[in-house]
Amino acid sequence: MIDLRPIGLTAREAAFFLNKAKTDEKNRVLLTAAEDLTKAAEDILKANQKDIQAARAAGMKESLVDRLKLTKARIEAMAEGLRQIVSLDDPIGEVLEMKKRPNGLLIGKMVVPLGVIAMIYESRPNVTVDAFGLCFKTGNAVVLKGGSDAIHSNICIAHILQEALDKNGFPTGCVQLIEDTDRETVKELLRMNEYIDVIIPRGGAGLIRMVVQNSTVPVIETGTGNCHVYVDESADLNMALDIIENAKTQRTGVCNACESVVVHEAVVEKFSKLLAERLSKKNVEIRGDEIARQFEGSFVPATEEDWGTEYLDLILSFKTVSSIDEAIRHINKYNTGHSEAIITRDYENAQRFLNEIDAAAVYVNASTRFTDGFEFGFGAEIGISTQKLHARGPMGLMALTSTKYIIYGNGQVRK
Amino acid sequence: MIDLRPIGLTAREAAFFLNKAKTDEKNRVLLTAAEDLTKAAEDILKANQKDIQAARAAGMKESLVDRLKLTKARIEAMAEGLRQIVSLDDPIGEVLEMKKRPNGLLIGKMVVPLGVIAMIYESRPNVTVDAFGLCFKTGNAVVLKGGSDAIHSNICIAHILQEALDKNGFPTGCVQLIEDTDRETVKELLRMNEYIDVIIPRGGAGLIRMVVQNSTVPVIETGTGNCHVYVDESADLNMALDIIENAKTQRTGVCNACESVVVHEAVVEKFSKLLAERLSKKNVEIRGDEIARQFEGSFVPATEEDWGTEYLDLILSFKTVSSIDEAIRHINKYNTGHSEAIITRDYENAQRFLNEIDAAAVYVNASTRFTDGFEFGFGAEIGISTQKLHARGPMGLMALTSTKYIIYGNGQVRK
Repeated sequence: MIDLRPIGLTAREAAFFLNKAKTDEKNRVLLTAAEDLTKAAEDILKANQKDIQAARAAGMKESLVDRLKLTKARIEAMAEGLRQIVSLDDPIGEVLEMKKRPNGLLIGKMVVPLGVIAMIYESRPNVTVDAFGLCFKTGNAVVLKGGSDAIHSNICIAHILQEALDKNGFPTGCVQLIEDTDRETVKELLRMNEYIDVIIPRGGAGLIRMVVQNSTVPVIETGTGNCHVYVDESADLNMALDIIENAKTQRTGVCNACESVVVHEAVVEKFSKLLAERLSKKNVEIRGDEIARQFEGSFVPATEEDWGTEYLDLILSFKTVSSIDEAIRHINKYNTGHSEAIITRDYENAQRFLNEIDAAAVYVNASTRFTDGFEFGFGAEIGISTQKLHARGPMGLMALTSTKYIIYGNGQVRK
Repeated sequence: MIDLRPIGLTAREAAFFLNKAKTDEKNRVLLTAAEDLTKAAEDILKANQKDIQAARAAGMKESLVDRLKLTKARIEAMAEGLRQIVSLDDPIGEVLEMKKRPNGLLIGKMVVPLGVIAMIYESRPNVTVDAFGLCFKTGNAVVLKGGSDAIHSNICIAHILQEALDKNGFPTGCVQLIEDTDRETVKELLRMNEYIDVIIPRGGAGLIRMVVQNSTVPVIETGTGNCHVYVDESADLNMALDIIENAKTQRTGVCNACESVVVHEAVVEKFSKLLAERLSKKNVEIRGDEIARQFEGSFVPATEEDWGTEYLDLILSFKTVSSIDEAIRHINKYNTGHSEAIITRDYENAQRFLNEIDAAAVYVNASTRFTDGFEFGFGAEIGISTQKLHARGPMGLMALTSTKYIIYGNGQVRK
């Protein structure tokens, strides 16, 4: 375990500098970094090869090796990501509201950086560039703790980013990579309240749980998604099939994919057959409750555990309910607060579902797959928050900011 | 230690009910509660007497006994507080932004309750009513853990609130008081992520630190205030005297009181004498650095520890600096992120101070004592947040809300 305080101090100093930086100056760094990443592609690929060899030697599955692997095209995509961040508006310094109080005080709410952000993530090395770009644009210093699998790639990339900072007169402390791969180091990081303003974990459920359980620094939880599609009594069943097929199979390993369908008993006989037929073409295994299995023999029996499982795979659970109330209760009990959809033609049921479902994004007649910063029009995405404090749902640049009140007076004292 | 899960479950059920309640219905409960508190004044005073007797028997200081003590007037003020909350706009259900995406999806951001809020507080029994009123108006169920000193008063008050809920057809689970005074119970509460959405501690630095260090549930830190007033080279010294006197002495035991003055060396000779003269009338002890003490013999020597101390008493530290840069550095190093002021006639220095000081509220030419939800015009105050996530500075009703995205589609799937 290494002493992280020097890293914390360096980050705080950089954050103080960054808070004063102009948008043009920050954009210049981002453009330099984009150019330098492209230029250094060979070096990055060489470092990445070391990670890949080590991973294969340790017996990593090829699907995971692929997440780790960089190519020229992937490096170019990282550089392009930085150029896109340049094109986004800089929210820092904007005064959101400014009001005159009866005593003459002029009070406004200024958008400011959070300060120092720690990002803890797993194997994809592109997160190193992405996290830096988003934090830097919003004036935050960032401390990165990537997965040990990607350590050589990350060191190489972080070095390039620091050089781009240095060339433009910025402190290299704007981005720091913790190279130590000791697990205790992460735990120390999680308790550095004096230096770190917020911790954002990006990765699987295990990583996120570990961070939430151990951190005394505030955390933005980017969560897992046990997303449901509820097929109402009045649903257009063809629309329901299209949406469920999309939400389940368009991409399976993502948090906004559908993991469970909830079906009103009035349509369960017809719909269970239609769904089995539609999804069998995509090799989806459907795990149904007793009622559904009466009508559709291909369904595997579902257990209580299925209702709470995020498969991230070609598996779907199927629950029958006798009313929209039961559907809402079921979903609120088992969901992870991510994305939920109703398919309905009924006005009242649509409004009830929107109001009563407790989740970051609630849909009427659309696929849960839209829960995404780009699809929502933010131009960037830090992650999808499933907590209720600070930011909920897809997070754009504003999620990396705070505010402070600025008050213009002329001698006012309190009576 | 008691099992808190039944309380958690009951709160979640109540939160689900409350999420659907209309503003009129909620206001009716608040008005009933206000009326019933006034009517039950004798019972409350009797319960309060038990707390006071126990406190005195345990040797509690009279100044603390006073915080615990209720009178008819204080009970009436609690009832009046509820009536004021009735008059505030209900933020729940408002859709903050609604935009049409190119694919036809209509995406809006709806203000929703946080869900279940736990409030952990110390001796003042009025917080029981206040916390309930604010949480309830914003559709949140609240779990209260008051100080053991006030347990009889709190039980009596909570009972009255629950009756008011019941009379109006609301579940009594909207407000629950944890009667167990075991410290381990609080620690269990801090780890009930499944049932509680946010924890708000209200009290001294020790309580807040304990909550931050032990909670896995997100916390809104309502903080301590080591607030500074910086007297710039160009300051109007009379204005500086008025503001410092106000910020130091108008009320001493509060978080927005001034604890330290930072003075530019160009005015230190003159200002140290003026300040000593002004504050000696209010019996303020001033602890000065070496430079200041050369000019003003009445100053007590300040130590390094003084710069970081929130006295909450008639004591003020006095630091001399050679530039605004040094002033900003000093304040950013020792402050607690609460409220900071500059007294200046210089445009550039005013703007630099506003931009570079890292605090919830930054003032030019006004007293730090204005950092307050009522003074800021919010009509209510839950506390003053000194953290950067979710809410910063005085918190009004909006700080007790979250948002969820609602999306109206007509069959959209992701490509």
